[in-house]
Amino acid sequence: MNTVLYRDSQVRIMESTVTNAEKHFGQFCSLLAAYTRKTAGLRDAADRLVLQLLDFASTEGPEMRATLRDFAEDLAKVQDYRQAQVERLEVKVVNPLKLYGAQIKQTRAEIKKFKRVRNNEIKQLEKLEKLRQKSPWDRQTISQVETSVQKASGDTGRTTHQLEETVDAFQKQKLKDLQKMLSDFVTVELVFHAKAVEVYSSAFQTLEDCDLERDLEDFRAKMRGVYGRYDARLLTDTTPSTAVPWSLPGQSAQSAIRSQRKEEEASEDDSAEEDPEDPEEGPRGWGRRSTSRTRAPQSEH
Amino acid sequence: MNTVLYRDSQVRIMESTVTNAEKHFGQFCSLLAAYTRKTAGLRDAADRLVLQLLDFASTEGPEMRATLRDFAEDLAKVQDYRQAQVERLEVKVVNPLKLYGAQIKQTRAEIKKFKRVRNNEIKQLEKLEKLRQKSPWDRQTISQVETSVQKASGDTGRTTHQLEETVDAFQKQKLKDLQKMLSDFVTVELVFHAKAVEVYSSAFQTLEDCDLERDLEDFRAKMRGVYGRYDARLLTDTTPSTAVPWSLPGQSAQSAIRSQRKEEEASEDDSAEEDPEDPEEGPRGWGRRSTSRTRAPQSEH
Repeated sequence: MNTVLYRDSQVRIMESTVTNAEKHFGQFCSLLAAYTRKTAGLRDAADRLVLQLLDFASTEGPEMRATLRDFAEDLAKVQDYRQAQVERLEVKVVNPLKLYGAQIKQTRAEIKKFKRVRNNEIKQLEKLEKLRQKSPWDRQTISQVETSVQKASGDTGRTTHQLEETVDAFQKQKLKDLQKMLSDFVTVELVFHAKAVEVYSSAFQTLEDCDLERDLEDFRAKMRGVYGRYDARLLTDTTPSTAVPWSLPGQSAQSAIRSQRKEEEASEDDSAEEDPEDPEEGPRGWGRRSTSRTRAPQSEH
Repeated sequence: MNTVLYRDSQVRIMESTVTNAEKHFGQFCSLLAAYTRKTAGLRDAADRLVLQLLDFASTEGPEMRATLRDFAEDLAKVQDYRQAQVERLEVKVVNPLKLYGAQIKQTRAEIKKFKRVRNNEIKQLEKLEKLRQKSPWDRQTISQVETSVQKASGDTGRTTHQLEETVDAFQKQKLKDLQKMLSDFVTVELVFHAKAVEVYSSAFQTLEDCDLERDLEDFRAKMRGVYGRYDARLLTDTTPSTAVPWSLPGQSAQSAIRSQRKEEEASEDDSAEEDPEDPEEGPRGWGRRSTSRTRAPQSEH
């Protein structure tokens, strides 16, 4: 056991500390960036649902229309909070991790400097060793090289000390940063989930309050009263009235029938276009790797 | 205005009700399935983070190790709740929407039946019209065709009545199902977010309780005490002691230096392999469209 070996082991611990931090912080950065992107993807999927709800709302009766719009608004609000979550994760967690690379670079430079200084010490040692073996009588040269060795050893000592301080500060900062990063992550998540609970609780109440019977009455009235106030019983009457509608003058009745048939064919053509489009494909701008937003956020909350 | 036109308008309202429901429920199904898949993707991203935290934990001091493990466990717990959320969304929201197709098919069949019956009525009407124009004297044939028309009209009336009832039931069921689907969606989300708040609150406390100073002391001791209890001051001493370590017999010192250099080169080779792998690439089984799980859930909670 000697100081050279000791220093070498020490520097290897320092190196592995930095390398380990670099490796794990790099992986954290990638994984948290991926987590943030996935969150943004979920936000986009929900945003598309909001648009669809609003589209559907416009085709429904007044009660369901109001309910769907309120519900869409609540769902949009959650996505606004999710957007805030995405932004905070980027600013408070992912970006600091990205900047970590610079800190690691600096510590690596310190280690490199130490190795250079130590290699010089080893070179001087080798020189001295050789000299002692080949010319043990040359006291003057040996003395000169011994002075160089002492100087090199002093350099190594100072550099080791500096390195020790650097690595100590690095480790301290690393632990502090790790703790802060995880705390920030949890805080961002906590705020989002708490807000989601709040908004969805109100959305649940909105749905409970929806009076479907009112819309059904509306629908029935619409179905039966297409042309003014026709009595619904007329439709179930199997005996045609004496003034049968088909006793109209020939041509006009026939043309009415023909035009009906045309409309019927046209409406059957329409229905062929109604396959729901795959939302996964979506507009090109909605790539899953992007965390940018496609829907404008709600005004204020 | 006549009964034929009235019925035609009525059936068009019914058709558009069914077509509209088919279109919007189909889109809902796709969008909610996408939302569920995105949720599953987020769960997978977080699961990878859990594994990384556990991997990192094993390289840290006792305090941070325990903290990282506890934190990873909490994060995993949230993903278990997210997994339950994914399963519930599939069972309670997406699957019922998928089954909706069958209900729509049945109502479409009723409408088709009505159209067939009504076309027969129209055909009889046309026949009667033609007969009246061409052979107005043929009272007997006219009377026969009039009977057929009456019968066809009766069929149409009955079918219209049935159709009315079917569409009424369809609309009622649609509104009820829509309300239930949205309520189920909100309930599933509420449960998940509430659980997440609970788990993350505990995770926050764990992080607060972590005593970094203890780990730092450990790290310092490790750095300084690699080979037994070396005095740290030795390293900062710039004057070599009289018993200089390099005054060891020639060969053994030289071979020690050589072996050190070899180890150094080897450790430099190691560090080249430490680029963090891209977690987005991941194992093939973790495709983003799959909602299947790669990590086994926590035992019980």
